[in-house]
Amino acid sequence: MFFASDNASGASDKVLAALVEANAGHALPYGADPWTAAAEKGLQELFETDCAVFLVGSGTAANALALAAASPAHGAIFCHADSHIANDECGAPEFFTAGAKLVPLPGEKGRITLESFQAGLKRFPRGLVKQVQPSVLSLTQATESGTLYNLASLKALCDEAHGAGVDVHMDGARFANALVQLGCSPAEMSWKAGVDILSFGATKNGTLNCEAVVVFNKMLARELVFRRKRAGQTLSKSRFVGAQMCAYLEGGHWLDLAIQANAMAERLAVQLKEVPGVRLPWRTEVNEVFAILPHKAHLALKMEGAVYYDWGSRGLTPEEAPREDEIFVRLVTSFATTRNEVDRFAHIVREVLA
Amino acid sequence: MFFASDNASGASDKVLAALVEANAGHALPYGADPWTAAAEKGLQELFETDCAVFLVGSGTAANALALAAASPAHGAIFCHADSHIANDECGAPEFFTAGAKLVPLPGEKGRITLESFQAGLKRFPRGLVKQVQPSVLSLTQATESGTLYNLASLKALCDEAHGAGVDVHMDGARFANALVQLGCSPAEMSWKAGVDILSFGATKNGTLNCEAVVVFNKMLARELVFRRKRAGQTLSKSRFVGAQMCAYLEGGHWLDLAIQANAMAERLAVQLKEVPGVRLPWRTEVNEVFAILPHKAHLALKMEGAVYYDWGSRGLTPEEAPREDEIFVRLVTSFATTRNEVDRFAHIVREVLA
Amino acid sequence: MFFASDNASGASDKVLAALVEANAGHALPYGADPWTAAAEKGLQELFETDCAVFLVGSGTAANALALAAASPAHGAIFCHADSHIANDECGAPEFFTAGAKLVPLPGEKGRITLESFQAGLKRFPRGLVKQVQPSVLSLTQATESGTLYNLASLKALCDEAHGAGVDVHMDGARFANALVQLGCSPAEMSWKAGVDILSFGATKNGTLNCEAVVVFNKMLARELVFRRKRAGQTLSKSRFVGAQMCAYLEGGHWLDLAIQANAMAERLAVQLKEVPGVRLPWRTEVNEVFAILPHKAHLALKMEGAVYYDWGSRGLTPEEAPREDEIFVRLVTSFATTRNEVDRFAHIVREVLA
Amino acid sequence: MFFASDNASGASDKVLAALVEANAGHALPYGADPWTAAAEKGLQELFETDCAVFLVGSGTAANALALAAASPAHGAIFCHADSHIANDECGAPEFFTAGAKLVPLPGEKGRITLESFQAGLKRFPRGLVKQVQPSVLSLTQATESGTLYNLASLKALCDEAHGAGVDVHMDGARFANALVQLGCSPAEMSWKAGVDILSFGATKNGTLNCEAVVVFNKMLARELVFRRKRAGQTLSKSRFVGAQMCAYLEGGHWLDLAIQANAMAERLAVQLKEVPGVRLPWRTEVNEVFAILPHKAHLALKMEGAVYYDWGSRGLTPEEAPREDEIFVRLVTSFATTRNEVDRFAHIVREVLA
Repeated sequence: MFFASDNASGASDKVLAALVEANAGHALPYGADPWTAAAEKGLQELFETDCAVFLVGSGTAANALALAAASPAHGAIFCHADSHIANDECGAPEFFTAGAKLVPLPGEKGRITLESFQAGLKRFPRGLVKQVQPSVLSLTQATESGTLYNLASLKALCDEAHGAGVDVHMDGARFANALVQLGCSPAEMSWKAGVDILSFGATKNGTLNCEAVVVFNKMLARELVFRRKRAGQTLSKSRFVGAQMCAYLEGGHWLDLAIQANAMAERLAVQLKEVPGVRLPWRTEVNEVFAILPHKAHLALKMEGAVYYDWGSRGLTPEEAPREDEIFVRLVTSFATTRNEVDRFAHIVREVLA
Repeated sequence: MFFASDNASGASDKVLAALVEANAGHALPYGADPWTAAAEKGLQELFETDCAVFLVGSGTAANALALAAASPAHGAIFCHADSHIANDECGAPEFFTAGAKLVPLPGEKGRITLESFQAGLKRFPRGLVKQVQPSVLSLTQATESGTLYNLASLKALCDEAHGAGVDVHMDGARFANALVQLGCSPAEMSWKAGVDILSFGATKNGTLNCEAVVVFNKMLARELVFRRKRAGQTLSKSRFVGAQMCAYLEGGHWLDLAIQANAMAERLAVQLKEVPGVRLPWRTEVNEVFAILPHKAHLALKMEGAVYYDWGSRGLTPEEAPREDEIFVRLVTSFATTRNEVDRFAHIVREVLA
Repeated sequence: MFFASDNASGASDKVLAALVEANAGHALPYGADPWTAAAEKGLQELFETDCAVFLVGSGTAANALALAAASPAHGAIFCHADSHIANDECGAPEFFTAGAKLVPLPGEKGRITLESFQAGLKRFPRGLVKQVQPSVLSLTQATESGTLYNLASLKALCDEAHGAGVDVHMDGARFANALVQLGCSPAEMSWKAGVDILSFGATKNGTLNCEAVVVFNKMLARELVFRRKRAGQTLSKSRFVGAQMCAYLEGGHWLDLAIQANAMAERLAVQLKEVPGVRLPWRTEVNEVFAILPHKAHLALKMEGAVYYDWGSRGLTPEEAPREDEIFVRLVTSFATTRNEVDRFAHIVREVLA
Repeated sequence: MFFASDNASGASDKVLAALVEANAGHALPYGADPWTAAAEKGLQELFETDCAVFLVGSGTAANALALAAASPAHGAIFCHADSHIANDECGAPEFFTAGAKLVPLPGEKGRITLESFQAGLKRFPRGLVKQVQPSVLSLTQATESGTLYNLASLKALCDEAHGAGVDVHMDGARFANALVQLGCSPAEMSWKAGVDILSFGATKNGTLNCEAVVVFNKMLARELVFRRKRAGQTLSKSRFVGAQMCAYLEGGHWLDLAIQANAMAERLAVQLKEVPGVRLPWRTEVNEVFAILPHKAHLALKMEGAVYYDWGSRGLTPEEAPREDEIFVRLVTSFATTRNEVDRFAHIVREVLA
């Protein structure tokens, strides 16, 4: 019963097999190998456009490099108050951008609203020298709260950004989980909606250590090859990252993995919702279930070895917030989560609250 | 006949098998897994001291983080003019240190001499505000020219550094190759000689993407955990890096790999030296052979598919420098290099120059 | 009727005369002159302690250097949401610290409360690697809203900070105005209350371009001499800055200037308060009057040539906020403000609203 | 007998008078005042082009801002090995550029030769990701050795730079001294020769603290207004810097000051050259005399109170280098240097060596 994070799963069998296979023979280092080239080509085909692709080894590096490509040091980067870039990367975006300012925007259920973004823009008038200048809107899809932007709201936010001379970054650490839920194409959920640069996550969804910065707005790609090198992210044995990405994309494998992860979360949510005393403040849209559990259930779960994190309740409205005898938790599923794990978890909760 | 770089080899079978094995089950992310803990412990035992260990994903990241841990932004980092940090990392040390100055020192055969370092120190008097301040001496062991510092000269350089209030970094991208040649212990070639912080390389010698910053001077370790995170080098699925390191160290595997790499270089050097018309300016001490070949031999080798790089002749004395009809090349062997490859290469040279 | 900013005044006659006098003869550059030494000694005597003093040329530079001295790049700097460092320096603190994060704290009337600071600290647990680490609490005295921290609340905030391992910076751009109002000693309003490092402003209060970073916690002073040089703030003809500071402090001149500035604000506030239709949301404590004026009065003032800025009403409670036919303005007085200006301004408001 | 630095002089009477005059009345802060506008206009007229002008408070700030405007963080900045930016600014260029690399080029008498620059370019091939990329050529006019680039060599260097996609920065700390010696127009010695961005020095030649970044290549000016603010160089009482610059330029005052400084150096050089035992390795072209003095003369001068610096002899050829009983010194004159000082200095040398 491991629901701490999708990072806690290993790699899928197919991805691992591809890695092993890529080990044979010699290959030129630093990305001059066929696997890296194939991965770049694979992503271009996936996105149906001539995007620039930069493989890197971690999601934090992908986000920070993408933001640095899009924001000058005197830029304001608008993001959700609960976003990963604002809270979970120890200032990586500030480091890579040489000191840009992340502007946290409020928004229910992890989503930035158009109004929230517009209010943010107003606080940083273009050309007012004493203030940092609007440069990037960073959207997380799926959000840190396991919710989604639909295509219409994505587009509206991107349009607003572009109208204000602001580029759009998407933190796609859970891009796959969002995509299979929305049922659209990768292009539709990115550049066709107006995304300029994307952190395309794969590690949480079945690779070992493989992410990509995908750049649709070519202006932003110009310096990235040097920035990546300078950041220690141009891997010498790049073939191993390339091979992961190739296997990940091959035959829709990445979508299968995400479908399984989402289905397990759905299965968990459906069962938990029915238990009196358990509350789910947000709709489960991808592979994360956020639940308010009675302490009694929490203790029983821990005793049975369930692993998951308490979650800060900052994102909840006063009505939703946990009471004294309750706890707010995040339950993350992955491609490796089994029905058995899910059902056992729900069973424990049901039993103890019966 | 692949002699371009030791980065061009894959991983050893044992390392790869360990990676595959580590894939089973769940593990807490960001280094809170047993493999990472075991790797850290393994390195502490290897170095016979309570050092701090930080696994990272690339050698450039290891070097840049280590230098940033040891140098303020207003620091002078003394290094060999041909060093990797000065020439091959696109300014990563400058990025991670927020703008420290790398001071290239001359020195024959890739080695900084005591005199050269002393002259460097003199140019940056302690307390002279208009100049950056001496902060780090970075030594590459084995050097970029495939040569070694013996323990006595290592110690002399470290003593000089410490006497001047300067910490010592060792770029150990080829630490294993140096160690087996010197026949000393890891402790003797590092902290016992005076090294404060070490980039412990493993990727060139048989892992996929696994390096470690090993900190002997605990003062330098205080901020590293945050710097690593901020640099996108705190890997979510750290178990895969930990598992590589464990297998690499297990039962002296890393030394076996280096012994094989060095032996192949030695075998190549011995054969090439005997060919009239071929010159080896430097003694082959580890897994790199530097050779001046007649163009004729170069062309024959290329036609036969040999892969290797021309090398800048900046490091050669005027007497050693290649003539018009010659070329200076670097030939790197690895654990994966075979006798057959070596012998065939030598054979071609012999034949064409006969 | 110039109430736009205290920066809009020139220098006091005494300060200007000292500058002219300092022009005679030669003097060693970069601070090795007697004026600079005397200024440093003057500030040490003023603060009754062996503080380190660094003269600089602008308030933004003073703040940014002080923050960089106290915060690592992975630090969280707590400040009021309306503070100058957060809103008016185009990211200078982020630049000088190599990317630290400014954490804006809410607080009525420009003041950070103990509760607000404690809540801020809670969001950044010590040792939680994914988040920046609490490093500095920056207090503005007098605040951007023209209000004051009394000594007791200063001390309580500093104690809380030190208890959490956080250093305290004071932005004293209007230090003099605050001091004469509180009627305490410079030592009491700084290090005796717990301030570790101070931006001691003089430019707004009668010098041309002269500020000082005053460091009480000597640990924070170690690198500042190099940071200042590197920032282009080690002035070649430092005598001219030193001479300003000497004259500024001489015989309590700086206090006289602040007393005059504050008195003019008080005079203005007293008169405005009595006019029906005018509201002053905050008590006038130093040299700034914040007033909600009917549009009618605003138009009349502008026609008569009064100069002042509209002010963002973010800091006001909903009850205080201006109505549709009102405007919220900031009126700043300085040592150079005359009774005549003040009375004429008030007269116009009275007349038009009569 | 003060020959330590032209920074050791105060301001000219005219400049000081203008400063005093500018003190009257109110003026909008941060450069929105008439003096700043007039100074910007004055420089545009002087340079006969629509350049962008940014007043700043120190030469180091001017250089560092100019370089940051022209170089990305992954850039190589080519400069003379003895240049001020490389040796005397404690890494300010590295700080402002977020870690660019200064590449010191050799060159006799303080001048970069075309060959030296070409060799430098060759070491950093365009597009080679492992190396920083050629971005700026920084030329010092007059050089740190008191010598000049003539217009032809300036143009040749600029052409070479532009051909390689490299922008040209001129460190004009002694622009005036160079200009009056060459007898050309400011435009000819800057943009007409190919200079893209200029640090226009005034402090060494008679102002108090007033420098300007003058941008001819408008592409480089786009971000400078934000960079300057962020660096704490957007001065609140900018009128005082603007007034200095206006007076400095008015009626060719700046040229008169430089003519006097140069004439005094020439007078000193002529006399010293005639003294047996004294050697002048370089031609005196502006306001600096470099002389090799017998120790005996040095001691006599010091006893008589002469102030000047020993100079590093790195720039001398082995033939020129001082012998054991000699010392290499730099003697700088300024607009404030008198004939009497010069003659007395020369007299002492003559007497003791007679």
